[in-house]
Formats: sequence, structure tokens, C-alpha cells
Amino acid sequence: MHIVYKSEPQRGLYWQRWLAAHAPDIHLHLWPETGEPEQVEAVIAWVPPDDVTRRFPNLKILFSVGAGAEQFDLSALPAHLPLVRMIEPGLTQGMVEYITFAVLGLHRDMPRYFQQQRAQQWQAHSAMPASERRVGIMGLGELGRAALTQLQTLGFDCGGWSRTPHQIPGAVCWHGDAQLPAFLARSDILVCLLPLTPSTEGLLNARLFSQLPAGAALVQAGRGPQLNEQDLLTALDSGQLRAAVIDVTEPEPLPAGHAFWTHPAIWLTPHIASRTQNDSAVSALVANLRRFQRGEPLHGVIDRSRGY
Amino acid sequence: MHIVYKSEPQRGLYWQRWLAAHAPDIHLHLWPETGEPEQVEAVIAWVPPDDVTRRFPNLKILFSVGAGAEQFDLSALPAHLPLVRMIEPGLTQGMVEYITFAVLGLHRDMPRYFQQQRAQQWQAHSAMPASERRVGIMGLGELGRAALTQLQTLGFDCGGWSRTPHQIPGAVCWHGDAQLPAFLARSDILVCLLPLTPSTEGLLNARLFSQLPAGAALVQAGRGPQLNEQDLLTALDSGQLRAAVIDVTEPEPLPAGHAFWTHPAIWLTPHIASRTQNDSAVSALVANLRRFQRGEPLHGVIDRSRGY
Repeated sequence: MHIVYKSEPQRGLYWQRWLAAHAPDIHLHLWPETGEPEQVEAVIAWVPPDDVTRRFPNLKILFSVGAGAEQFDLSALPAHLPLVRMIEPGLTQGMVEYITFAVLGLHRDMPRYFQQQRAQQWQAHSAMPASERRVGIMGLGELGRAALTQLQTLGFDCGGWSRTPHQIPGAVCWHGDAQLPAFLARSDILVCLLPLTPSTEGLLNARLFSQLPAGAALVQAGRGPQLNEQDLLTALDSGQLRAAVIDVTEPEPLPAGHAFWTHPAIWLTPHIASRTQNDSAVSALVANLRRFQRGEPLHGVIDRSRGY
Repeated sequence: MHIVYKSEPQRGLYWQRWLAAHAPDIHLHLWPETGEPEQVEAVIAWVPPDDVTRRFPNLKILFSVGAGAEQFDLSALPAHLPLVRMIEPGLTQGMVEYITFAVLGLHRDMPRYFQQQRAQQWQAHSAMPASERRVGIMGLGELGRAALTQLQTLGFDCGGWSRTPHQIPGAVCWHGDAQLPAFLARSDILVCLLPLTPSTEGLLNARLFSQLPAGAALVQAGRGPQLNEQDLLTALDSGQLRAAVIDVTEPEPLPAGHAFWTHPAIWLTPHIASRTQNDSAVSALVANLRRFQRGEPLHGVIDRSRGY
């Protein structure tokens, strides 16, 4: 089986060696090298080559190297071609780590303590138990569910919201636009792990922030265009929000001089919440290719009607 | 039963009301009010009143309001008087939160990312899975064991060290001076939760740091006098340590101008890792008093020979 890889070259080399050792029937071509185009059955990329289906006439699957698939131009890709996001335990675990770090930091008022450190001020503030802290996760896919489950082990009072109904033991789950206000009203710490779609673009705005409890906090690990940056700054300055942990921006890198770099209540990280991990991802890719070869359903197929 | 409380007045009032509602046979006197001294069977305090046993001739137990008992002057307290530390789930959970936050932050290079934010620099660095990160917990009492167990749920490779042997499922445990080097050699992130005793004073020094893997990180949530502050600064500046999260100092508050306030690789918090929680602590206190009334062993009795 022949696959074309178009993404970070180092990972491509690693995967090529890994496949040669563990799955020698799978030939990984590192773009721009492609082998015989007629033989290519799958492409794995962040941004795929132009005219990918014309270039590879026997293409059966287009894989994303990441958890998102918003970079695919659905209108340019034929409806019969399965588009598959990356679901792999390394990517999930990295996100669980980041969200747990961010939620604990906000729960324990760490942005305030770090400001105090800069001001050389030694002052303790009262803390509440995790069981009284209501965390709300927006987006209950692979990553959101895993983060929620981990936060439950720390005793947080967790709720979730997503487009479609979900059931998670020990958590109240809301869904759809109609139930969004009820979910927001009880989210002391709001975590965004939504995919980027037309309906999530700009969703984190003044109207949404005003529906959170006063003094709530935000963790944004979804996609940059979901956040109205000026609305966040306004909500922080009014005290409606007390702090935010931001991993994604629009554009990336965030331009020099942007207010997020210096705002005392913002922790900014450079889109590092989670990354596809070499080992676990190539294993997950091979498992999906084996499903394809056996005629079984693939994991992570994108629903074009909802866009993720 | 009559008890004298000598600590934060607000908590005392809360406990008094709580006991009146839930355990009306237990009379809590808020220092300096004591009721009839002859009737007092227990004192709960951080620093007890002077001449506590002469003042309360029928004293049966001296409780610490905190997890530590290093403030008790053992030489001035009669050997037959049980000294009891606070073991209560709120205190334990607060420490688990702090340690989990600190270890995740160090694991994910957050001190470096926060420095980058200040420098307006958008740059990702490679991350390793938690399963490859070796965390070492010094001190395997109530708090250390709970922190270790929580870190295991995140996939960290956890080990522990303490004065006496312990067995913790899934973790390698070392004990005693002879095994300390082996424990240190595999601790990428070292967490100190040791009690303050003559043998732990100054333990976190240049010699100990030199036995850690190069580029290790430190979480100090034990007691201030355990850390040689100059040795920590030297180890950070040489790169032997890459970062430290410090919650306790000597003295507290840390004096203005101290290097810890401004060191870019130090996160400093004002002894807030964990505090005795009103509700869960008064429940734990009552449970211990009931044990006493039934003639059962108390939880948290201090072993005077080891000093904790």
C-alpha cells in the first residue's frame, strides 16, 4: 500500500523508519516524492497538495495529521472521499495535561499569585474545594471527554456542552444552542475544545462571557478564530472574567505588541497544548489503514454536514 | 467534653457553630476564653498556650491545626501527652491540587513558556509523554501518597522516598539515607513533602541537587528550612536544575528583594499549597475525639522519636 505524507519532514522520516520495521507493506512517500501517483491510496497531511484527487486518481482516504480538519476545503474534495482526523492517545493525553494544568491554575488563583510574585507581595487568599468549582467543557469529542474525566478524578464539579447529546457518568451534559445558557450559567471555569466550524467562529464573545458567573475564567484550547479577542480584553478589564489561559490565536504566531502578550490576567502559550506524538500516532494510522484493508469503518471520519 | 481552640478566630467561630449543631456535647472555647481549666481535656492550636499542661491539669490530647507538628516544643511537653497532627481530606486534596499543578507545569515547560510570553516570543518546544517523565516524591505520608496516586492517573512514572519503607502499587519506593542516591538519580521532577525535623533541615542542598538528572526540576512544598536557598540559585544558574516551584521559605513572608521574587525560573507562592479546610477538618477532629472517647487509637499521633 502506498501513502503520501505531507507535513513536518522529521516526523515523516521517523514514520518511514517505523513503518519499514513494523508494517513493511505500507510505503510512506515523503512529499514532494510520491512514487507512482496511480498507486497512492491515501494521503496524510495538514494542508493536502492542490488537486489531490486529480493528482492521485486512486486516492481512497485523506488523513489529517492533527485533531482538527478545518484546513480541508470541503467544497474542493469529492463527497465520496473519506476525510479522517487524527485520533491517537498521545494527542489526547497531551491535551488532558494542558487542560488539567490550566484548570488547576485558575482554580487555585495562580495568575493572581504570579502577579503578586512580580510585585514582591506575600499574601494568601482563601481557596475553595474542587468539589465546589464548576468546570464546563465545550466540545465533548475525544479530547473533551478525556479532559472531563481527568478533572473528575480531582474532584471538580464537571459539566459539558456539545452540539449533539452526550452522556458522561457523573457529569451533567447540555447540548445545542437552546441549552447553552444553562451550561454557561454554571461554568466557573469554561474550557473551549470545540472544532472550528462556521457556527463556532466568534462564539467566545461578549454575549457568551456575560452569561458566565461573574469572575469566571476561560481556557481556550480550541481554535483562534473562535475567540473575539477584544471582547475577552473587555471582559477581563470589567472583572466579568478574572483570568484566561490562551493557547490558540488568530493569527498564529500572535503579532508582536498584541495585548495578550502583556495582559497580567492572561497566560499565553504558543499553540502547544497538544501535538500529535510520533509513536502513538503512527500506530493509530496503521490501525486505521488495517481497518480500511478489512473493509471496516475508520476511526475519526469527518461528518461533512457538520464540518468536523 | 471541653476543648480549647487557639488559632485563626474566624475558623474558631465556624467550628463553634458547627459543633453546636452537629456535636453539642463538645464545647469549643475560643482562646483566650477557656471555661473551667480543670474541665479542658484537649487543646487544638498551631502554637499552644505556654505551660499548657500546667494551665490545663486534665489535658489528654494536644492537636495541631495543621499537617505539621514541628512547632511543638517536644522537650516541654510531657511524654504521656499524645500530640496529634491534622489529617483531613480537605488539606490532603488541596496539596494534591498544588502538586499536580506544579508537576504538570514543570513537565510541560510552562516556566519557559511564561518567560517567552514576557519576551513576546512565539516558539513551541518538543514535549515528552508523562509516561517518560520520572517524578520523585520525598515524604510518603498522607499528603505524599495522595499526590503520588493522583500523578499516576496522569501517566507519570512515579517513585517515592521516605525514612521508612512504603509500598505503593505501580511506584518504586526507596527509603533511608542509603537509598536516597538511587531515588534522586531517577527524579526528573523532585517533589519535597517531607516534615521538618533535624534530619530534613537543609536537606535540599547542592549535594542533593547534584545527584538529580541534569536539568531536573524541583517542587518544594515541605518546610522552608529544608531548602538551602543559595544552593538552589546556584543550581538554577548552572542549569543543573531548570526550574523550581516554591511554596515555603525561611523566613515567611519572604523578605522584599530576595532573589526568589524575581528569578525567571522560580514560581513562588506564599505558603498556600494547602490549608486546613473548615468543614472537613472539624469532621476529622470530631472523629478523632470519638475515637478517644471509645478508647481507640487516634489518627495522626506524632512519633516523638522521629519528630513527626
